[in-house]
Amino acid sequence: MEQKLAELKARLMEASDLYSALSVLEWDQTTYMPPGGAEARGRQMGLLGQMAHERSVDPAIGRLLDDLQPYAESLPYDHDDAALIRATRRQYEKDTKVPKELIGELITHTTNTYQTWTEARPANDFARVRPLLEKTLDLSRKVADCFPGYDHIADPLIDQSDYGMKAADVRRVFAELRAGLVPIVKAITSQAPTDDSVIYSHYPPQQQLDFGIGIIKQYGYDFNRGRQDLTHHPFMTKFSSGDVRITTHVKETDIRDALFSTLHEAGHALYEQGINPAYEGTPLNGGTSSGVHESQSRLWENIVGRSREFWEYYFPQLQAAFPDQLRAVSLDQWHRAINKVGASLIRIDADEVTYNLHVMIRFDLELALLEGSLEIKDLPEAWHNRYASDLGVTAPDDRDGVLQDVHWYGGLIGGAFQGYTLGNLLSAQFYGKALEAHPSIPTEIGQGKFDTLHGWLKENIYTHGSKFTAPELVERVTGGGLQVEPLLNYLRTKYGALYRL
Amino acid sequence: MEQKLAELKARLMEASDLYSALSVLEWDQTTYMPPGGAEARGRQMGLLGQMAHERSVDPAIGRLLDDLQPYAESLPYDHDDAALIRATRRQYEKDTKVPKELIGELITHTTNTYQTWTEARPANDFARVRPLLEKTLDLSRKVADCFPGYDHIADPLIDQSDYGMKAADVRRVFAELRAGLVPIVKAITSQAPTDDSVIYSHYPPQQQLDFGIGIIKQYGYDFNRGRQDLTHHPFMTKFSSGDVRITTHVKETDIRDALFSTLHEAGHALYEQGINPAYEGTPLNGGTSSGVHESQSRLWENIVGRSREFWEYYFPQLQAAFPDQLRAVSLDQWHRAINKVGASLIRIDADEVTYNLHVMIRFDLELALLEGSLEIKDLPEAWHNRYASDLGVTAPDDRDGVLQDVHWYGGLIGGAFQGYTLGNLLSAQFYGKALEAHPSIPTEIGQGKFDTLHGWLKENIYTHGSKFTAPELVERVTGGGLQVEPLLNYLRTKYGALYRL
Repeated sequence: MEQKLAELKARLMEASDLYSALSVLEWDQTTYMPPGGAEARGRQMGLLGQMAHERSVDPAIGRLLDDLQPYAESLPYDHDDAALIRATRRQYEKDTKVPKELIGELITHTTNTYQTWTEARPANDFARVRPLLEKTLDLSRKVADCFPGYDHIADPLIDQSDYGMKAADVRRVFAELRAGLVPIVKAITSQAPTDDSVIYSHYPPQQQLDFGIGIIKQYGYDFNRGRQDLTHHPFMTKFSSGDVRITTHVKETDIRDALFSTLHEAGHALYEQGINPAYEGTPLNGGTSSGVHESQSRLWENIVGRSREFWEYYFPQLQAAFPDQLRAVSLDQWHRAINKVGASLIRIDADEVTYNLHVMIRFDLELALLEGSLEIKDLPEAWHNRYASDLGVTAPDDRDGVLQDVHWYGGLIGGAFQGYTLGNLLSAQFYGKALEAHPSIPTEIGQGKFDTLHGWLKENIYTHGSKFTAPELVERVTGGGLQVEPLLNYLRTKYGALYRL
Repeated sequence: MEQKLAELKARLMEASDLYSALSVLEWDQTTYMPPGGAEARGRQMGLLGQMAHERSVDPAIGRLLDDLQPYAESLPYDHDDAALIRATRRQYEKDTKVPKELIGELITHTTNTYQTWTEARPANDFARVRPLLEKTLDLSRKVADCFPGYDHIADPLIDQSDYGMKAADVRRVFAELRAGLVPIVKAITSQAPTDDSVIYSHYPPQQQLDFGIGIIKQYGYDFNRGRQDLTHHPFMTKFSSGDVRITTHVKETDIRDALFSTLHEAGHALYEQGINPAYEGTPLNGGTSSGVHESQSRLWENIVGRSREFWEYYFPQLQAAFPDQLRAVSLDQWHRAINKVGASLIRIDADEVTYNLHVMIRFDLELALLEGSLEIKDLPEAWHNRYASDLGVTAPDDRDGVLQDVHWYGGLIGGAFQGYTLGNLLSAQFYGKALEAHPSIPTEIGQGKFDTLHGWLKENIYTHGSKFTAPELVERVTGGGLQVEPLLNYLRTKYGALYRL
């Protein structure tokens, strides 16, 4: 058994190393690669992706898993080896059920679609991507059909990123959340708009970056095992336990951009840096679901990084870094400005309260497309209608409408968006549990100390990587399932105070 | 035939793409990788190297080459397809003659030796690397013995980097060069030493980098297909025709470091950027030998970059960039300072005249080790003795003696050094030919114009990549073979004027 386990680990390590090499090439592509390198880079990444996939679906892995099954069953459920064999089987079955030809077609098609989208969006030209998107929908359905026996055709796609969730579960949770959110949004937007002009002063880029780096070092992001670079769209990427990088983006006239994307990506990175290094090279060495991952980015970005306590500590430092811009601004004004709530057009710029309404629109449209009740040609109009009815705003064009998010143009339709809202729900649940264990956390945040919170998250969530599925992890940490009330309570308390509701 | 050729090219492209991916990982390792990433990176690079090698020695390539041989023979010698088949066969035979096990042993051993050297050199501890170096010598002999029928055991190792050259050829050429160099060195070093204190003022790093970048843009280095970053040891690396990068190193108190390493690596990069892009993914897509490559780095660094004309144009700009440091310095003083000749201990810091004497010491010692007339245990003493007799200087320790160069500690013993001096010889031969064709070149350099020279080099050398072997290329360009007189003439003329000999 020991030998078989060692062979399994060696094979997994090889696939993982190839995926890591691919990630290095992707990171370089978005950070430093000169324009002339693009063509060959696409080819090189395609080759590595294909080779990594071939190793992941090698029948030898299936045989080893079968051989190791009795061993896994002889172990306690929580044993690392049992978890490794379980997680590998789940991944292997997912990977092998989709035929190689379909995966090849998908890679070619999404590369092509993404490329077209990068041109179609600035040109506000939905017609250019429409036929491609129709094929994406077709391919998405084909992928779903590789997993027969589903209740809803979106289920297998949701399962890819949020294992254990079905469309019906998400719908129920989203409906409950929406019912709670709408009155909060209404109460806030009936007031006079907050003055957030302070956000848009001129802030020199290097000082913005330095300030963000100072904060995430305090959070506990380890720069000996990571670094930050600039990209067009911020992201987090992992090459190994010892190399977890983040990127950010700076706007000279919007201080939120670099600051909050840094805190957000650092949240993802704290999760990955906190995983038990013994899991290196296995499917356990990564966050367990899209929802749990997003819970950490949103926790460090919003619950911590937009809290009153946080800025009680950091605002004087921010004023010292940008005296001309902030000398005449009070902590109150600043805190209200970075927490301004309002109906808007762009998801990624949305505030904590309305953000989930943006996600719900996308989720509902995905389901309608997959079900066949909505056609791609009617998608732009459906998008505008939902924004009008849910948020009371209408985009002047498709650029800031249906073309705004990369997801459908760089992947499948289905399963791409629910994780964001699941993450917001979980962030409130997890933070609530951390507070129960350590009521001193808000006071510590007010002193720029994050060790207690970071330590609790590491011990209860990060270290496990993918050892437990998201539902198992939520059960272990909270003693129950996914809940809507903690987020609603958090929002009601925070925004009740801010807006004197 | 067309199909076979296409299949050959597809296979070569795959191996090339894997080697390129490996190069990206190496580049990242030396530029931006955080320390925590080192362990996994070594593993990932090992895997890519092994996979690329497996593809290079795939028997299918041998079969395709056999099948394509009649086609190659039916073509004119200069036809690209004929050259491709020729170059691929040469590479394939070289790669397949060394058994896989020996290559594996070599990779592990040199990785280990390199790691030990990085610690042994600062600690001045030759004893630590001695047993490793003994094994390196043993492995080097084993590699040479994979190519039976040699005249000298170093021949197959020299052939790896300078195809067509044998130890006896190199010895003859080096003896002739030495006979010409020694009187020049003696005549110069009998004079009072040049005052080069201007070199060691304080020069802010960013301005140093900006100045170098300005020059190589003028040279014709294309930043749309390349970039410059900082590393401990400067190098050039190529990921594709469209992505040829260089690195440099800055010392705040030695302006030569960044400046001349930038011109040197840009010379390598101009060669690689100038290769016919149709050769992408094949063995033709790279410089044809170590000597020819070095001829280009040395040409742009020294013949152009340390010439009087060059600084007539650039020195006023340098003074404007560093007014406090250079206001009181004349062009004459500057030009003499950067061309100061003197016996020194470190090869990479040596001037144009003595540089080749450093190379000859290493070449002779390599040969003696391989022949068995020198043992590793006696190498440090032999090194000191040769420096005393050839250059009249003695290093206070092994750190600046036998431990100074990475080559023996990161590769084989044999074939590692001769290319530097072959390059110097060729740089003078090629430049002489360019002058014959375009006598206006020095005048143009004095106006900061390099198009004529760059264009001539591109047309006559760069575009061909490895289409011709080095001896073939030298014959095509100069109408003859490797010659010593052009370099000696160049040195006599230049230093005769500088030192009024």
